Amino acid sequence: MAGTDDVEIYRVAGIDEAGPGDLTFVANRKYISRIKTTRASAIILGEDIPPVSIPSIRTSDPYLAFARALEQFFAPVVPEQGIHPAAIIAENVTMGSHPSIGAYAVIGKGCKLGAGVTIYPHVVLYPDVCVGDGSVLHSQVTVREGCILGSRVILQNGVVIGSDGFGFAPTKEGSFYKICQTGRVVIEDDVEIGANSAIDRAAVGDTIIRRGSKLDNLVQIGHGARVGEDCVLAAQVGLAGSTHLGNRVWVGGQVGFAGHLEVGDKAVITAQSGTSHDVPPGAVISGSPAFENSAWLRSTAAFAKLPQLVRKVRELEKEIQQLKSSLKMEHSK
Amino acid sequence: MAGTDDVEIYRVAGIDEAGPGDLTFVANRKYISRIKTTRASAIILGEDIPPVSIPSIRTSDPYLAFARALEQFFAPVVPEQGIHPAAIIAENVTMGSHPSIGAYAVIGKGCKLGAGVTIYPHVVLYPDVCVGDGSVLHSQVTVREGCILGSRVILQNGVVIGSDGFGFAPTKEGSFYKICQTGRVVIEDDVEIGANSAIDRAAVGDTIIRRGSKLDNLVQIGHGARVGEDCVLAAQVGLAGSTHLGNRVWVGGQVGFAGHLEVGDKAVITAQSGTSHDVPPGAVISGSPAFENSAWLRSTAAFAKLPQLVRKVRELEKEIQQLKSSLKMEHSK
Amino acid sequence: MAGTDDVEIYRVAGIDEAGPGDLTFVANRKYISRIKTTRASAIILGEDIPPVSIPSIRTSDPYLAFARALEQFFAPVVPEQGIHPAAIIAENVTMGSHPSIGAYAVIGKGCKLGAGVTIYPHVVLYPDVCVGDGSVLHSQVTVREGCILGSRVILQNGVVIGSDGFGFAPTKEGSFYKICQTGRVVIEDDVEIGANSAIDRAAVGDTIIRRGSKLDNLVQIGHGARVGEDCVLAAQVGLAGSTHLGNRVWVGGQVGFAGHLEVGDKAVITAQSGTSHDVPPGAVISGSPAFENSAWLRSTAAFAKLPQLVRKVRELEKEIQQLKSSLKMEHSK
Repeated sequence: MAGTDDVEIYRVAGIDEAGPGDLTFVANRKYISRIKTTRASAIILGEDIPPVSIPSIRTSDPYLAFARALEQFFAPVVPEQGIHPAAIIAENVTMGSHPSIGAYAVIGKGCKLGAGVTIYPHVVLYPDVCVGDGSVLHSQVTVREGCILGSRVILQNGVVIGSDGFGFAPTKEGSFYKICQTGRVVIEDDVEIGANSAIDRAAVGDTIIRRGSKLDNLVQIGHGARVGEDCVLAAQVGLAGSTHLGNRVWVGGQVGFAGHLEVGDKAVITAQSGTSHDVPPGAVISGSPAFENSAWLRSTAAFAKLPQLVRKVRELEKEIQQLKSSLKMEHSK
Repeated sequence: MAGTDDVEIYRVAGIDEAGPGDLTFVANRKYISRIKTTRASAIILGEDIPPVSIPSIRTSDPYLAFARALEQFFAPVVPEQGIHPAAIIAENVTMGSHPSIGAYAVIGKGCKLGAGVTIYPHVVLYPDVCVGDGSVLHSQVTVREGCILGSRVILQNGVVIGSDGFGFAPTKEGSFYKICQTGRVVIEDDVEIGANSAIDRAAVGDTIIRRGSKLDNLVQIGHGARVGEDCVLAAQVGLAGSTHLGNRVWVGGQVGFAGHLEVGDKAVITAQSGTSHDVPPGAVISGSPAFENSAWLRSTAAFAKLPQLVRKVRELEKEIQQLKSSLKMEHSK
Repeated sequence: MAGTDDVEIYRVAGIDEAGPGDLTFVANRKYISRIKTTRASAIILGEDIPPVSIPSIRTSDPYLAFARALEQFFAPVVPEQGIHPAAIIAENVTMGSHPSIGAYAVIGKGCKLGAGVTIYPHVVLYPDVCVGDGSVLHSQVTVREGCILGSRVILQNGVVIGSDGFGFAPTKEGSFYKICQTGRVVIEDDVEIGANSAIDRAAVGDTIIRRGSKLDNLVQIGHGARVGEDCVLAAQVGLAGSTHLGNRVWVGGQVGFAGHLEVGDKAVITAQSGTSHDVPPGAVISGSPAFENSAWLRSTAAFAKLPQLVRKVRELEKEIQQLKSSLKMEHSK
């Protein structure tokens, strides 16, 4: 640590809230100006930040360093080990070592739970669900029949895995015939899904969220959709059925995808955009309907000045009329 | 079946996943090219699709045929019959024959359940709820006091029926006075509602979802809104209070309606659109704010080229200036 | 009451549904024309409405008067007093007088409940939650560890308070390292939150919803965000992390805010808008990306006529070409 040999740290805190004894950090350049006013005793900084007057730790990755520091000072709430007497475990359930199954959890027939699984109170597993080692299912989660969760999966409260896909065949009479949804949802290792999100099963085939992807709250994943590895989907995103995201795709909040699309690796779709077309790998797109981001930025800038453009065109039209009459007069001289 | 007398089918599968012994289908023309590469043993096709080399079933409605075929090969998970001992049934509850009431379900005073109703674990019915014959309520569903569900209604997991409408009277001091929400929510026969959707009750009068309508996940229906018969609302749609949809209205994902609107029969509102105006019957509208779809398509095409238009107008302005000076010179000769 | 000394009222009803014996109201000017056709026995009206032929009550605030009248005729469902034997109350829980704790509620260690708190069935409080006097938590609500609810807070069904914020540090290998979310969520007095909304906790510091604010259904509040006093957030709004709304901010349905923004007091953001910029106090903004509302209205009007503008510019271009050739001919004479 630069600046002193002798700082005692008791807590990690945000730059505005930090006081004496606190370690803080700046990972977002927007907050550099606040380094001067923080009352923190020490700060974690990126290597590119100018010198500061308080004790500092320099690192190429201040956000990760902050995450690690936080773990040193934080005692997480640990749910009780064992199976609560008010949990209902159906027959033919297998369970690894060190389970934590909360009150009123309902585990259906034939479920298979790995080692060190944490099931909070009021979780419902329908029959034949698999949950991998070390996964954590928060209260009010439901996992429907036959769905598969990998290892170290985290489901925040109220998540629904495996609800019926939105599949109906229109009849000649104008009503809808429900198509039974026989597919599974497969959530691979190290996926986290945010509160009250819903991942639908399909009529046939699997809906898949691949290893390491992170989905925020209130996200909708339609039947048969697939999310690649290490994707990030911000809150309230919606994928319609059978749309496939590649790996490391970044999706901003409230984005919508139509069905049956292919989105290439490392594509970025900015917040509130919507697309009904495939997205090439690495593309950055924006708007609804979405197109290339830098072109969209120019179009939106022009949109804000559209009334002036309309006026200008009207003026030009008048000038042309005047020019025409002048020319006619000239001609008739 | 065309192409052979002798195919044995063991499963129904998607066109990419299908292998020997599988029946597959093409209902979406986007997938016609994949007929050549599928390994399925047979295929269901629309009558308009060109001849294929594998055994095929031709039908005017391949999607419905696929739905029926699926049922032949699929053994759905059937919840246990009877009333689980850990369900709590209050006094004055009436119940038809063959109920299935899961663990930890809570059925309030005066509820009336029809015949063959399926209540999954962790469903909560507040007092005086009616549920029609054959309806299915998945885990974590709540139906609030006095609300009515018709027959064969399906509520996916986490649905909330009858939460308080968002009704507050502003006070002179700038805060809000809660208006008690005394109305009911009425869900008619054959309606299905997707996971974690919420349908609010109103201060007075009913919020109604009419026969046969299908709502996808995370849909919001405001107080006093009405959805007509056989409507389709895709995921994350929001209807503000007192807005009425006619019959057979199609609403794309993430669409928003302002309050107090009338939307005519068979109107179509495409994904991510928003409107604060009434929509005539049969209209197809798009955009936010929304207008007629084909005009909107032309406007969005022009929007993508808006920077070029701005440049063009600037060039024309220069040319006009040059013309003016030329004409002046001409004149002054 | 004007118009008669002698009307008996038995119910309050909407203007279209009302019949003999009903009191109705007109608070929205859109419904003035229906006063002529209502069958209500009496009506509450604003002072600015023209004279009517049925008995009427005039008031400067018809909506508030309607709210008060409704309370006179409405007998709300009152949950049972006491603690249901199937509720699980952990050790070290303190509780004020007159609690109502429903079946299968789970109250974690160290929780503190004020007087007159109503906990509906299937509510889960993780350890160390505080709930102020008179608050009402509907079924399927979860409040996570250490979160604070003020007095008279109302949480509609399925609300999640204190789910982990969406905080991950990207690693050099392209995956994500979960940052433990140690902050609390603080919900101040008189706040109401709609069904299936989710309010995230932050890595450090509090996520705060201040006194009197009202959030509709399916709203997303990101980690470390703050909502000021007496704000109104319509359904499906999303605030990304660390964004701060001032007091009395009005937010239309489906609006999205990027992270780390400051939104000034009394700002208005109309439905479906989105912004990644700070919003000054009192500003009214629209669109995605959003800008000043009246300018946006002009731009959207011009957008709908954009194809005509493109045609007009093409015509002007031709006319200029013709003028140029005419002038050349003139010149060459």
